[in-house]
Amino acid sequence: MIIIVKEELKNRLQELRKQMKANNLDSYIITDELDVWYLTNITYSPEERPFFIIVPLEGKPQLVVPKMEERHLGEESNIDVDIISYWDNPSPEGDNWFDHVNQVIKDFTRTGIENNVKASIFFEIEANELISLDLVTEMRKVKTPYEVEQIRHTCKIADDAMAYMLNSAKKGDNILGMFAVAGQIQEELVQAKKFNPILSELLTVVWPAPGSAMPHGVPDIEDTMENGPHIAMSYFRVDGYAAENERTFFVEQPSDKEREIFQIMMEAREAALAKLKPGVKTAEVDNAANEVINNHGLKNALRHRTGHGIGLNNHEGSFIAEGSKDVLQENMVISIEPGIYLDGIGGFRHSDTVLVTKDGYEILTHAPTTIEELTLNN
Amino acid sequence: MIIIVKEELKNRLQELRKQMKANNLDSYIITDELDVWYLTNITYSPEERPFFIIVPLEGKPQLVVPKMEERHLGEESNIDVDIISYWDNPSPEGDNWFDHVNQVIKDFTRTGIENNVKASIFFEIEANELISLDLVTEMRKVKTPYEVEQIRHTCKIADDAMAYMLNSAKKGDNILGMFAVAGQIQEELVQAKKFNPILSELLTVVWPAPGSAMPHGVPDIEDTMENGPHIAMSYFRVDGYAAENERTFFVEQPSDKEREIFQIMMEAREAALAKLKPGVKTAEVDNAANEVINNHGLKNALRHRTGHGIGLNNHEGSFIAEGSKDVLQENMVISIEPGIYLDGIGGFRHSDTVLVTKDGYEILTHAPTTIEELTLNN
Repeated sequence: MIIIVKEELKNRLQELRKQMKANNLDSYIITDELDVWYLTNITYSPEERPFFIIVPLEGKPQLVVPKMEERHLGEESNIDVDIISYWDNPSPEGDNWFDHVNQVIKDFTRTGIENNVKASIFFEIEANELISLDLVTEMRKVKTPYEVEQIRHTCKIADDAMAYMLNSAKKGDNILGMFAVAGQIQEELVQAKKFNPILSELLTVVWPAPGSAMPHGVPDIEDTMENGPHIAMSYFRVDGYAAENERTFFVEQPSDKEREIFQIMMEAREAALAKLKPGVKTAEVDNAANEVINNHGLKNALRHRTGHGIGLNNHEGSFIAEGSKDVLQENMVISIEPGIYLDGIGGFRHSDTVLVTKDGYEILTHAPTTIEELTLNN
Repeated sequence: MIIIVKEELKNRLQELRKQMKANNLDSYIITDELDVWYLTNITYSPEERPFFIIVPLEGKPQLVVPKMEERHLGEESNIDVDIISYWDNPSPEGDNWFDHVNQVIKDFTRTGIENNVKASIFFEIEANELISLDLVTEMRKVKTPYEVEQIRHTCKIADDAMAYMLNSAKKGDNILGMFAVAGQIQEELVQAKKFNPILSELLTVVWPAPGSAMPHGVPDIEDTMENGPHIAMSYFRVDGYAAENERTFFVEQPSDKEREIFQIMMEAREAALAKLKPGVKTAEVDNAANEVINNHGLKNALRHRTGHGIGLNNHEGSFIAEGSKDVLQENMVISIEPGIYLDGIGGFRHSDTVLVTKDGYEILTHAPTTIEELTLNN
């Protein structure tokens, strides 16, 4: 079981309080599963039983939790907290989660709350002043050195899975075998006692052509790999931290048209990467990639933004998107994955997990990128 | 890939409209992933890109979806809808999801919305009158005959996994082997081409004593099974529908004290089951089980309610809980799982998936229940 070290948790709490002060808040409510883990090392599956951390500017954070979670929290929590439990919901009158949360916050003046809370929860909270404001989500956009190391660890595993897929994908195979790679890797991690199921998600899959043109269509496990372009996806979260590695590949010689589109995708990818350094707007990075694609008359082949943040979540801020107001900062971790999608042919997309460094960037995932290397001959 | 038949979807939509009419709504907004699937057969992972169905009283439902989902929806949707897409978020001005949703609802008078929507989504919706009201969640509490068949199918698989665990659990074994059972079952389903990863979740695990006293504490995969009481859990969702089967077992002769507690748990279970029939308040069922446990002076050993609904979600309404206002109806599917938890000893809990029938109930999961059968000698 991974334990986030106390020093790291102390720093995170300190940073949250700094942000609270800057926003004139004397208390802040957190309910999101990942944000709870980020601040306390406590893992749980909320299902329909909500879980709260109420952070005051000074003094211990107060946890309001379902009775059934109470006993094991002491063992997991790596920060000093008070635990208040409510009876299983729907609870008897006076013993609901909101009775306890409202009791804790009643003497605070200005209470902040995350935007990702459910409306049904938001409606029950009675604060003197309640402010919807994302603080933890914002903090999570910039990674600490500890977090960068965790992500590097997951990248390594995602790379192994990608290498395995590229070394074994064969013309005519169905995609079952690709789907099974994650299972093998999970087994290895479990055997090595390096796997926490609550904090991990392992997915390897190939989107075979021509369905690869639908980036979120779910491929049928009976689909086989013919021609190309296929997209192999290695999408991991291991012990809390995510990584992604994706490659477009062929199992026989691509046509001239396919080569051309592949090169445009590579050019868009280069254009996005070339922009990466602290101070640059994420929208500018998206525009750089989109411009290449548009300039080749492929505007209609664009189906998504250039990338997204990666951390505790496979997808999180900052988004590398036209409408984003974010600016790149050192130690952000993002995906760069401009895609070109042609119905009847397929999708062209590489994705890498990329660290923004002091002067530029470092690609944390590794796999071949050229069409020669990615025309497989297994 | 499972396809919900058109007739079933048509009936569900009709029922929703009946509920809308009863609540004077001329439109209703749905965003929850499972509710979307329930009404349309469309599977997707929303992540940070929201997905909406806006159902008018008459005419086609309107789908507001991310651009990247647009192409494959026609293939999956098994009802007649209009599709409106928004550019990837954060979107450029005027092309946000809320621009499109607000455009669709602007001429309606009274728009309903699910309570499980995120606050950040709720805040952006501009309706003439916006009413928070759970309609689909309520409908889902009572299963159609088609749904009962799906749940029976999952129960059968959960039973197989439980049988496998009980036939192989041995004193001194670590719980790794138990965790692996789900993997084997997944492989069998995949080979038989009866597995949709987006709609399925397979979990088998043993909570070994004494940690079994913490029903939601995550056991360490290095933990071994000594004495007892251990709790084996077979927690499945297969092709959209869930089931659970849990048993308390021993790998050597239980002590007199353990026998006594086991029998009290069985008595509480019987008391809850005996209450089950249409018209009975779910709170009454919870009270019946709790009373048995309290009467034996074990009030402090109670850590959760007696049960919960099972359907598309492993946990959903109706909750068999003291604070619930629900009344049992024919074709509700619930768990019955009163538990007794003693620190330092462990947990005592069986859980079954139970159908409320016209006159009483039918237990849909099958596994031995007596302490003699559950004292394993593998």
